[in-house]
Amino acid sequence: MFENYLSERIKGTPSSFIREILKVTQKPEIISFAGGLPNPISFPQEELKVSMDRITEQYGAKIYQYSTTCGLDSLRQYIVDRYKQLWNMDITVDNVIITTGSQQALDLIGKVFVNEGDTVMVEKPSYLGLLQAFCMYKAQFVQTQLNDDGLDIEDLKNTLKTHKPKLAYLIPNFQNPTGLTYTKENREKVFEVIKDENMILIQDDPYGELRFEETERIPYIGLNQTNKNIYLGSFSKIVTPGMRLGYAIANKEIIKMLETAKQASDLHSNIFGQYLIADYLLNNDLDKHIEKIKKLYKTQANAMISAMEEYFPKTVKFTYPKGGMFTWVTLEEGKDVLTLFDKAIAQNVAFVPGHPFYVNPDKVNTLRLNYTNADEETIRTGIKRLAAALGEI
Amino acid sequence: MFENYLSERIKGTPSSFIREILKVTQKPEIISFAGGLPNPISFPQEELKVSMDRITEQYGAKIYQYSTTCGLDSLRQYIVDRYKQLWNMDITVDNVIITTGSQQALDLIGKVFVNEGDTVMVEKPSYLGLLQAFCMYKAQFVQTQLNDDGLDIEDLKNTLKTHKPKLAYLIPNFQNPTGLTYTKENREKVFEVIKDENMILIQDDPYGELRFEETERIPYIGLNQTNKNIYLGSFSKIVTPGMRLGYAIANKEIIKMLETAKQASDLHSNIFGQYLIADYLLNNDLDKHIEKIKKLYKTQANAMISAMEEYFPKTVKFTYPKGGMFTWVTLEEGKDVLTLFDKAIAQNVAFVPGHPFYVNPDKVNTLRLNYTNADEETIRTGIKRLAAALGEI
Repeated sequence: MFENYLSERIKGTPSSFIREILKVTQKPEIISFAGGLPNPISFPQEELKVSMDRITEQYGAKIYQYSTTCGLDSLRQYIVDRYKQLWNMDITVDNVIITTGSQQALDLIGKVFVNEGDTVMVEKPSYLGLLQAFCMYKAQFVQTQLNDDGLDIEDLKNTLKTHKPKLAYLIPNFQNPTGLTYTKENREKVFEVIKDENMILIQDDPYGELRFEETERIPYIGLNQTNKNIYLGSFSKIVTPGMRLGYAIANKEIIKMLETAKQASDLHSNIFGQYLIADYLLNNDLDKHIEKIKKLYKTQANAMISAMEEYFPKTVKFTYPKGGMFTWVTLEEGKDVLTLFDKAIAQNVAFVPGHPFYVNPDKVNTLRLNYTNADEETIRTGIKRLAAALGEI
Repeated sequence: MFENYLSERIKGTPSSFIREILKVTQKPEIISFAGGLPNPISFPQEELKVSMDRITEQYGAKIYQYSTTCGLDSLRQYIVDRYKQLWNMDITVDNVIITTGSQQALDLIGKVFVNEGDTVMVEKPSYLGLLQAFCMYKAQFVQTQLNDDGLDIEDLKNTLKTHKPKLAYLIPNFQNPTGLTYTKENREKVFEVIKDENMILIQDDPYGELRFEETERIPYIGLNQTNKNIYLGSFSKIVTPGMRLGYAIANKEIIKMLETAKQASDLHSNIFGQYLIADYLLNNDLDKHIEKIKKLYKTQANAMISAMEEYFPKTVKFTYPKGGMFTWVTLEEGKDVLTLFDKAIAQNVAFVPGHPFYVNPDKVNTLRLNYTNADEETIRTGIKRLAAALGEI
């Protein structure tokens, strides 16, 4: 009825495939690996309640009043201190903007930088939330192949040469949807290739803290070597996603532009949540809390991997995530994942078919599995069911 | 440095005049009527703390987890029930979407409906947040004169005939910036004129509950008579703005489109705040709370009006708000409000010059005064200072 009224940008947005899928997967008898929810263990509920009581007492009306667009200074300062400590970044609060979840950072970046038809390079496969956000600004996407060790360097060179992207969007740590991480060597090669390009590089890092192995953190691509990097982070996977708080770190000029866009988008992010999370971070040992999450996720990931090794046909490949929340499964060439999806639902197990992670989904034989929201036994049972479905296609 | 990278839409956005002004007004010696902050009395702090303790106990991890894009069902149902009761609207939760403040509703409507160059009709003067939001989608604005009784009917007819707007944005109750309210007769006339137009009508109503007089509520324009109305509401002025929670009520198809746009913008609004406000609303007497706010604001408005009557030269006109948070002052023709602004700052009193409320600010002789954040004595002192500044131009 309203079709004649709609903007071109909304007409161009594919209806949410994943939302339709999640509807099917909500039946109680289904074991769902389709979601992307962090495990409730990652919410420090008791500590947040203590912080809640404290900020209510300490700040009174301020936690309920309008606030500044860029966010609460104490929270921005915490982020500054942490990134200085971890990465030796030379930044101040003016390099940080708090956003309504990382998703809003993507939206604001699109608003500020993407003209209709501008080329944006993303991984193949890429995070669907970025594709949705930039689709609204009519970006032209090009996908560069993601391999086990990071971006495919030859494909990257070709992409840059052929398409001259204005922006690139990468998730170097425990990527969504694949669970893959770029090696140190790959990151260095990538930077070598892109450093003279006129390209803004967005590195989204919601999962970087969730490293299963006690290995060193791998630095961001081009860390401290360019002013064209935008680093995104989030409290969603390590404190709470329900408060919708993420952030962007970038050159001050970029932050100012994002601030202008944010003012027009929602004035500011909820200030109660900012006081709450700042108080929690300043009065608790975040790293100790993260240890607990990592321990659980590692156990869950291992349960899924070993079940897949045991039950899946050898023709089926999957990634071995060293952190994060997902593994990525590739069926034998020529197999259709939507056929598998129907068989899987009949077996009472669900996943996300690869489609929404591609710009041009065609003959898709991949799928995403999440392991953070089921116990080991349930994971084994679900994978067994999925193996049965695999036997039917 | 990043100018070559910026999108056309952000280049077209005027730098925030009002933000620059607010910087000047933050000196402690200045009495500021420039802000738009609700008085802290409007935050039911004790009751919110009770609700906070209750939802923490009652819902556990749910208040911290990801949630649905359209918002918490119990909060949407509360809105449905209230609008059914007040306005006899035939709606369900599918007609309601929760947004990150009303500002996000404006952004989402822009995203869904506004193509570059689409004509949007607004009042003259209009709410600057709408101008900012739609500016991002490169709307073409036309302003229709706002009079003491509502829209100027002849000007409205001309605007429709000449510009055929796709959307109209009106604030019929205690408008920001003028404090004016459309009479019942004016609303009926407006609807008579627009009802056969192919135009979506947005009625933003953040201040409607703040009626100083115990007169009846005046129905929205075209209430229950068209499916092309979008009604916006907010908890910012009656419970808390810090949680950033507003809502849109519209035809289900429109809500679905807004949902798609919202998913790409921030996934969902903070769910903790939704549980909190829903619990507060379901366990307290909102109308009784609103009485308290209205009583204070009425006293403050009266203090400002009577001081202006006493101290201002008779050539200066102002509105007599019957609710809301603002009054609108018009200087003698030919006087320049920016000259007055400088003199006022020298006298240690601040206001918002009319500029950001016009599409084409030129020779502006108007200004906005807010009265909700100062006590009666401070208001009198501030108006006296402003009168002194008026004497100097």
